Amino acid sequence: MFLSDIEIAHSNPMTHIKNIAHKLYLDDKDLEMYGNYKAKLPLELIDEDKIENSNLILVTAITPTPAGEGKTTVSIGLSEGMNFIGKQSTVVLREPSLGPVFGIKGGAAGGGCSQVVPMEDINLHFTGDFNAIEKANNLLSALIDNNLQSKTKNLNIDPRTIVWKRVIDMNDRALRNIIIGLGGTANGIPREEGFNITPASEVMAILCMAKDFDDLKERLGNIFIGYTYDKKPIFARDLKAQDAMAILLKDAIKPNLVQTLEKNPAIIHGGPFANIAQGTNSIIATKMAMSLSDYVITEAGFGADLGAEKFLNIKAAYAELNPKAVVLVATIRALKHHGGVAKEDYNTPNLEAVKKGFCNLEKHIENIKKFNLTPVVAINSFVSDTMEEQEFIIQKCKSLQIEAIVSKSWQMGGEGNIELAKTVADIVDENQEEYTPLYQWSDPIENKVSTIAREIYGAIGVDYSPQAKQKLKKIKELGFENFAVCMAKTQTSFSDNPKLIGRPEGFNITVRDIEIAAGAQFIIPILGSMMRMPGLPETPASEGMHIDEYGTIGGLS
Amino acid sequence: MFLSDIEIAHSNPMTHIKNIAHKLYLDDKDLEMYGNYKAKLPLELIDEDKIENSNLILVTAITPTPAGEGKTTVSIGLSEGMNFIGKQSTVVLREPSLGPVFGIKGGAAGGGCSQVVPMEDINLHFTGDFNAIEKANNLLSALIDNNLQSKTKNLNIDPRTIVWKRVIDMNDRALRNIIIGLGGTANGIPREEGFNITPASEVMAILCMAKDFDDLKERLGNIFIGYTYDKKPIFARDLKAQDAMAILLKDAIKPNLVQTLEKNPAIIHGGPFANIAQGTNSIIATKMAMSLSDYVITEAGFGADLGAEKFLNIKAAYAELNPKAVVLVATIRALKHHGGVAKEDYNTPNLEAVKKGFCNLEKHIENIKKFNLTPVVAINSFVSDTMEEQEFIIQKCKSLQIEAIVSKSWQMGGEGNIELAKTVADIVDENQEEYTPLYQWSDPIENKVSTIAREIYGAIGVDYSPQAKQKLKKIKELGFENFAVCMAKTQTSFSDNPKLIGRPEGFNITVRDIEIAAGAQFIIPILGSMMRMPGLPETPASEGMHIDEYGTIGGLS
Repeated sequence: MFLSDIEIAHSNPMTHIKNIAHKLYLDDKDLEMYGNYKAKLPLELIDEDKIENSNLILVTAITPTPAGEGKTTVSIGLSEGMNFIGKQSTVVLREPSLGPVFGIKGGAAGGGCSQVVPMEDINLHFTGDFNAIEKANNLLSALIDNNLQSKTKNLNIDPRTIVWKRVIDMNDRALRNIIIGLGGTANGIPREEGFNITPASEVMAILCMAKDFDDLKERLGNIFIGYTYDKKPIFARDLKAQDAMAILLKDAIKPNLVQTLEKNPAIIHGGPFANIAQGTNSIIATKMAMSLSDYVITEAGFGADLGAEKFLNIKAAYAELNPKAVVLVATIRALKHHGGVAKEDYNTPNLEAVKKGFCNLEKHIENIKKFNLTPVVAINSFVSDTMEEQEFIIQKCKSLQIEAIVSKSWQMGGEGNIELAKTVADIVDENQEEYTPLYQWSDPIENKVSTIAREIYGAIGVDYSPQAKQKLKKIKELGFENFAVCMAKTQTSFSDNPKLIGRPEGFNITVRDIEIAAGAQFIIPILGSMMRMPGLPETPASEGMHIDEYGTIGGLS
Repeated sequence: MFLSDIEIAHSNPMTHIKNIAHKLYLDDKDLEMYGNYKAKLPLELIDEDKIENSNLILVTAITPTPAGEGKTTVSIGLSEGMNFIGKQSTVVLREPSLGPVFGIKGGAAGGGCSQVVPMEDINLHFTGDFNAIEKANNLLSALIDNNLQSKTKNLNIDPRTIVWKRVIDMNDRALRNIIIGLGGTANGIPREEGFNITPASEVMAILCMAKDFDDLKERLGNIFIGYTYDKKPIFARDLKAQDAMAILLKDAIKPNLVQTLEKNPAIIHGGPFANIAQGTNSIIATKMAMSLSDYVITEAGFGADLGAEKFLNIKAAYAELNPKAVVLVATIRALKHHGGVAKEDYNTPNLEAVKKGFCNLEKHIENIKKFNLTPVVAINSFVSDTMEEQEFIIQKCKSLQIEAIVSKSWQMGGEGNIELAKTVADIVDENQEEYTPLYQWSDPIENKVSTIAREIYGAIGVDYSPQAKQKLKKIKELGFENFAVCMAKTQTSFSDNPKLIGRPEGFNITVRDIEIAAGAQFIIPILGSMMRMPGLPETPASEGMHIDEYGTIGGLS
């Protein structure tokens, strides 16, 4: 009955990427083409004056179910809607990881009538950025292990202290805990190691935080690796790694231009996950879009407790971006989930459950307000929604002085978002205020963590494991106290317990461990059993994929 | 005094790749652009009738020193020379691996005045083909490990029998022997594993042997993985992996068009090493060049005992290509080496050593003749060569009825190869014969190995280790006897002992182990301690690389 995403994408002929560039007042010669439908944009196009006059809109969501609540779809649909009502708009998104593509969640190019295309390319290797990040990360690893057994240039690194891991863009649980360097003297020094998934690489975080090429190189050199046997810290610059790593990233640093189904511009660049990293596209990509468009729609991953918190306290604070509006995506399905409904019953009307689950949305609304921003709720509409359920949310939000608007991004694209687009445009045009981050980077680490835990998660307090306490001490010794805090927390709860749905109260969070990303300038508290390498499901998505003799792909979502 | 390769490349403005395509009578719309200087060519351009009328020229070499004897440089220079004398020619090369780029050997885009450009891009990620191969290889690995701990779809694979390894395009010795799946029940099944370098992946071999998309998919499905606990063989198709793997290769299967410094066409595609794999570019790339050019120059890796043997017995035999000429590259330096001179003295004139080392070249000449082909010797000229040394080779070859011609590819490009180009063109135009492979694929495996060992290496006989004998038995049980034999042997000697220079005699080779590449249709006898994962040197090349704030690269060779 319904067409699949890839079938909808294929039924809609794309225009040459040059025509999209023309909408941004770019010349053909500004583009570095990757085929006819993808192009890289040179950094010279970034223009701070134009950024000053552009309007940034953040799309975030309530605490999601495992399938996601359609934040990317709504972001694309809203940008289509903005263009539809005559507001020149560009959507800025993250690049999908191959892990979820072959795992459960699928790709990340939107859905239905709100997609970015060519979706196969975007969901697969795209323009090679993830690969470049992976290679830069793993070159550093190879240099570390090469140094461990160097005869003439040995830095005396204690292998037991190395915190830098290899990465691969694949869901591959068997690589989480491994031992390398076996097989005798010619084959390295045996030590414990593990692979993270590429979006979790600090190189990804760095690429997305870098302001320009020099900044990129300096950050790469600042990566913290571990200690020598006599306890001196070792950084990537001690291995002279930063130039070679930056060389591997020479194209990856440039944002990618593609198109939406309605032939509006989309910029896609960088892809850190929001549970274990900062969860938003690169600063360079956002600035590029703001240099070229009046309105820029961008998304931050998972719920607003993760992506939006990090967007506002880390990315926007560091890059001095001032978002003018926040769109909070909610679904009837997710509200039912937070009201206690099991997955099998998501599609069954259940007003009581929606009422019960509303507490989750309400907490997210309260949180956004703490940043001096007033959210608009976008109800991402599903065919199984009832009018009654949608109307409940609209009225309930109204009682909180919040506008809630139904978005039909999936069904109708831009035309399904006219009301949402008009509302957002009005808020943006009327907003003369500056948003305020919740903490200063210069605050003590425990204060930053405590602020996020209390204000955003609703926790009573923060416990630190003995390991975490020891790490705190080391971080202070290293002089890294003034870094941003980038929490690693489950995406399925406000708390650090994945099973606590709705709006949990009366809980403490436990910082089990703390990681240092000195190049990204992040302190990363690890809550609970957060993992940086997913696994494949019982039936990997790869089994349902097919490709014919002409290279036409099916089964990719 | 001399400019570096990258400085020469930068001092020479490139033309838009469309202009190169026009030289091949292609329309702009035939190209899939990757920036302004790289393009992928769609498979529809392959034309069997045109292939029939094109002339294929193979460039090979004597047994090389570790720095290589400039086979790629001469291949490029010869193609420049052919175009210079009015013969429409395209050079077809392999893609460089990142391993050597950051290790000792450096990139593989030629040198001096005979280079393919943009050399930074070609030497780094290029159009992403190696990454695609790596991901296809490693997706299969993830699917295998996922199946090992599957509850509902377990194939009962015995982890101790798995022969499929992960790959990474990096010199990384610490990954040669590892243990994965540690850390308890949620993190996989513990087992021994190792990473090969990406050019050693069977997926690379398959991509380079595939005739079209359907053939690719079938070969991927045929990859042999290991056995179940009840001794049944398991293939990639049992994990339904072939479509997803082919999807990851949908662009990698298309050859890449770039340009030479003299703005002639170059096609670069695939990159199997010649010591551990088949050592030549893809069948699709060679056929593409032959569909578009009157003359096609292609190279096969390392000495003629490796790359050329495999080119003639495997690639050309399978793809029914008929090379019309063979160019055998020799250097004074390498002849001195085979005459017993140490590396420090390569640049000191030493006619006696050249005379003594000539035996190596002579054996390669004899070998090429066994394929019913008459080689031309190209003396790749170095500034340290003396006229006397060069003249000795010319006269000595003359006595063997072989033409030896000095090539000044590095110093002069096309103009340095006018005589070589004319000679090669004459040989091609006069050659009405068919070349003959040394064995039939249908011969018994031991016979095929013995033929290569006796006829090409000059061995007396072949010994098999007990392990190799057991593998032979399994290969026969599996019905894989009619595959090609793709020898894994050191590149520094005709024998399996890396230290035996010159023309060793009276030796046996020992087959230590035999690997199966059922998708590529190769049986791979492993001679000596051949490794499929190199290591970095004491001072990795990465240390000397630099990149400035504008992204301009230095120190890449």
